[in-house]
Amino acid sequence: MSSASASGSRRGRPGRPRLLPQQHSGTPREQILDAAAGLFTSRGYAATSTREIADAVGIRQASLYYHFAGKGEILTELLGQTIRPTVDSVARIESLTDDPDTALYLLALIDVRTLAQAPYNIGWLYLAPDVAQVEGFEDFAAARDDLAATYARLAEPIAAPDVLALVTRARLGEMLVHAVEEVIGLRNAGQRIDVTEAVGIASSCLRLCGVDSARIELAMKTAETLLDQIDGTDPDGPIRG
Amino acid sequence: MSSASASGSRRGRPGRPRLLPQQHSGTPREQILDAAAGLFTSRGYAATSTREIADAVGIRQASLYYHFAGKGEILTELLGQTIRPTVDSVARIESLTDDPDTALYLLALIDVRTLAQAPYNIGWLYLAPDVAQVEGFEDFAAARDDLAATYARLAEPIAAPDVLALVTRARLGEMLVHAVEEVIGLRNAGQRIDVTEAVGIASSCLRLCGVDSARIELAMKTAETLLDQIDGTDPDGPIRG
Repeated sequence: MSSASASGSRRGRPGRPRLLPQQHSGTPREQILDAAAGLFTSRGYAATSTREIADAVGIRQASLYYHFAGKGEILTELLGQTIRPTVDSVARIESLTDDPDTALYLLALIDVRTLAQAPYNIGWLYLAPDVAQVEGFEDFAAARDDLAATYARLAEPIAAPDVLALVTRARLGEMLVHAVEEVIGLRNAGQRIDVTEAVGIASSCLRLCGVDSARIELAMKTAETLLDQIDGTDPDGPIRG
Repeated sequence: MSSASASGSRRGRPGRPRLLPQQHSGTPREQILDAAAGLFTSRGYAATSTREIADAVGIRQASLYYHFAGKGEILTELLGQTIRPTVDSVARIESLTDDPDTALYLLALIDVRTLAQAPYNIGWLYLAPDVAQVEGFEDFAAARDDLAATYARLAEPIAAPDVLALVTRARLGEMLVHAVEEVIGLRNAGQRIDVTEAVGIASSCLRLCGVDSARIELAMKTAETLLDQIDGTDPDGPIRG
């Protein structure tokens, strides 16, 4: 998470391409991702060339291609960072609890953290039509679909019958993914995603399933006791906006 | 709504700038908006020039400036179209019903329709950092904030106490705006927003407030009887995806 916190202070200044090589730190690969994220989100994906990314890092274009097959691979890696930690937590969550309310709550909470802690708040780019046509984008789209399917699978046993009468199981999964993605807009607006925000959004996922308040409260309490046993998250660490 | 349905068949082919002037119809102003929306969403806002927009319409750049002060005004008009019909419906909704559940449900339903029927599915662009810096963008941002405040005002009296213990009134309003904005992603993915989708999303707004199933069902039934009395929506018209 060191790269995440290092980049925290740079976020919130959209439209400022980082053209000075010395601003980037970390491994060459991280520096490339860093520079590319800044350019993609400030200028747009289509308008950014690998040459400009290389220039921003202070390396030759040929060196960039040593690390990435091209601009598309850089983009899909950046998008992947907004989803992978969540996907990786699913098995652990399910090994820790048999309570379906708690499992869904934990998934949503970790998803909020993933989006809040991703080094770059790049998630919204997946809505850009030029990005949707990038080679390799289908891998991100598939990962996002899988995540929605996981939400749907965890939500189905706890959803109230009248919820599933109005939205299909699959659509409920998509709705929950979308609910958590509010983090992207909040970060864009410069809002800090702290524990209160995270709990508010995660609990809203249970509410969307029609789970009542008493059960939500219980799930929140149970989740609290399990959170430090889940890999890849630091429950005591700040959740930055 | 004729421009909305006329453009329906063109949607879902992102990344295809429309460079042939004869593809655009309507008044010169509409043709400019049409061409600009196609270019902004396929190439990005920053990468599109007023010259290219004029070329796409088949008019001179000077003629474009007769209709719009610049690229920024075109963008803010396009963004405004995704929010204005909803804002305009608020007074009418409140004159038609005293039931707060029904009022919020109607607002969400009309908001879904606005986003589904907006000529261009351009709403996601507001997340782009280059767009956030456009002159006039603050008007759109303010309109969206006002809409969130309206959601908050309607939601507050019906929200369960434990909902408001976890999220502030203002955040609940933002959450509801975001919930309805799922339409943008669905349209982007080529999904059709039909009545079932609209009802599913609007009812989820009541659920986010902690309203129980019996009350949601009642609000849906009451809303059904009022919908044809609300200006600017065509309850029998297709809601296109």
